[in-house]
Amino acid sequence: MIFEEVAKEIVEKVFGGIGVIIIGRDGIPLAMHLKEGVELDLETLGIEYSNLLAQIDQASQNIGTGKLVEFSLHTDQYLVVVRTITPDYFICLVMSPDGNFGKGRYLLRVNLPKLQAEF
Amino acid sequence: MIFEEVAKEIVEKVFGGIGVIIIGRDGIPLAMHLKEGVELDLETLGIEYSNLLAQIDQASQNIGTGKLVEFSLHTDQYLVVVRTITPDYFICLVMSPDGNFGKGRYLLRVNLPKLQAEF
Repeated sequence: MIFEEVAKEIVEKVFGGIGVIIIGRDGIPLAMHLKEGVELDLETLGIEYSNLLAQIDQASQNIGTGKLVEFSLHTDQYLVVVRTITPDYFICLVMSPDGNFGKGRYLLRVNLPKLQAEF
Repeated sequence: MIFEEVAKEIVEKVFGGIGVIIIGRDGIPLAMHLKEGVELDLETLGIEYSNLLAQIDQASQNIGTGKLVEFSLHTDQYLVVVRTITPDYFICLVMSPDGNFGKGRYLLRVNLPKLQAEF
């Protein structure tokens, strides 16, 4: 399936890539790919970020700052980029803190039309 | 005061810079600078983002992904980067959607020690 292919391709192509999950706003995952040998509960992470996305979108509406396109966060353990695919689905990339943030964002962006065409 | 100076310097130095607010987790602003002629309620925006920061930090703790260092979001109207100064204070940079995201993040990072020294 295209979703698994894209998830795998992004994880493999970006330096520091750990996992990619494509998930609904309802928290139900559609596809995911986790780098071999990595211990990470990507599904739980996806569910937490689907909640966050809804909260950020709500906050953005509250203050009239427009439709959310992407958000990213850096913790001391991970770099995470979340991008909206459709109003109901998004893609989440998890990298190591030294991962290539720019390339990760780029890969999400260029793969978007391919993903959107499936919905 | 150093806070106003840093806020002004960042807004002026980054392409697309609109405003900078330094704000407590409690939503009370410490300093801010808004580009001349811009209509934006930076204080309300800061309050919403202080809420978001708390939620993201909570989510990050829930899933064991570590301490939040920075988060950014892109809407169709703004580019926003929020960086933790201390556990109680953070700095928020608002840019236009075509603003220089990389330079904005860089300016927040390099000015951090100067800000942290004041707390």
